[in-house]
Amino acid sequence: MDPLFTETGLFLCLEGGEGAGKSTQAKLLVEWLESLGHPVLLTREPGGTDVGQILRRIVLDNDTGELSPRTEALIYAADKAEHVDRVVLPALADGTVVLTDRYVDSTLAYQGAGREIGIAELEAVARWATSDLRPHLTVVLDVDPTVGLSRFEGADRIEAEPLEFHQRVRQHFLDLAAVDPAHYLVVDASRTPSEIHQQIRAAVEPWLAQVGAP
Amino acid sequence: MDPLFTETGLFLCLEGGEGAGKSTQAKLLVEWLESLGHPVLLTREPGGTDVGQILRRIVLDNDTGELSPRTEALIYAADKAEHVDRVVLPALADGTVVLTDRYVDSTLAYQGAGREIGIAELEAVARWATSDLRPHLTVVLDVDPTVGLSRFEGADRIEAEPLEFHQRVRQHFLDLAAVDPAHYLVVDASRTPSEIHQQIRAAVEPWLAQVGAP
Repeated sequence: MDPLFTETGLFLCLEGGEGAGKSTQAKLLVEWLESLGHPVLLTREPGGTDVGQILRRIVLDNDTGELSPRTEALIYAADKAEHVDRVVLPALADGTVVLTDRYVDSTLAYQGAGREIGIAELEAVARWATSDLRPHLTVVLDVDPTVGLSRFEGADRIEAEPLEFHQRVRQHFLDLAAVDPAHYLVVDASRTPSEIHQQIRAAVEPWLAQVGAP
Repeated sequence: MDPLFTETGLFLCLEGGEGAGKSTQAKLLVEWLESLGHPVLLTREPGGTDVGQILRRIVLDNDTGELSPRTEALIYAADKAEHVDRVVLPALADGTVVLTDRYVDSTLAYQGAGREIGIAELEAVARWATSDLRPHLTVVLDVDPTVGLSRFEGADRIEAEPLEFHQRVRQHFLDLAAVDPAHYLVVDASRTPSEIHQQIRAAVEPWLAQVGAP
């Protein structure tokens, strides 16, 4: 399967550890794109569809207990399949700018770097689930886990992992960005929200030709 | 990945279309095995675990609406992964006779034969989910769908499919059995429950050496 970059619409992705400021940057980015007159869809993984919401609760609920690593990977993949087929691809076909909070890289980073499952197999499943649709640009908000986690209030199953887990996750995002610089921007998330937003704008701007004049 | 047949325990599977009499035969087979003194676990796919119950409801619920074919395949695969890792493999390791009502073949027959998804890709996902664990013996209860469906009261998403769908499903089970006769028994499900049970007994008996004297 070859990586798929759509010819219509613009597919943007925000990635990063907990407490990196993804929500804030998503909001600022959407506001800016809308101020330029572009149709924008803000979505998320996991949980970007009704079915995805149910799947997300299964994985993140402390009551679920320990899932088999393959089960967890497949549930996330099912969420992705529904999200891409029902939400992302139709919006891109309409010429929309789609911004997703997390995508395949989060799966690779969290399940692959963190758990005892083969990264190649995991990637094959996630790529199959998404028809290997890739974001035109992925912004990695890079933050030291000791800083990011202290900012974060949640205590669901992912955040309860030890610090080493989050350090492997961080490195995995950086490795993914390093091999494909044309489609990645890594931002130091310790800078101010406004500084980060300006960096993201500068990286997104050249891609707006993809969706034409608003 | 090579097919895995465990050296301990005995893994049996009942497959077939709706109304073929799987539940009746499962009950008779469990009673007979228990009367011989074997530890027996009767289980099912989808829904053989707590998480699997939730996943099964998502797929079969009419309220879910039309799932993307990949979503459906991945949800079934997640159910399988949990079932195999948490239920089937531990029981087989303990020397138990595990009888499952449906397994990978149902996925291949229902999702592969019936829907617009590549059978090779579908099989790869299902095999990965299950570590390619195979039943020592799969019993296919073969029934003409025009007969089977008339016996069946349910009207969930699968049974609401047209007759041609169920005919393709039936043929798929027969094809799977034909390529591996050492691990399959096809039974004419139009015979009486007692006759069918005797045929199944005769086919299971040689496999009991696998679990030794009770």
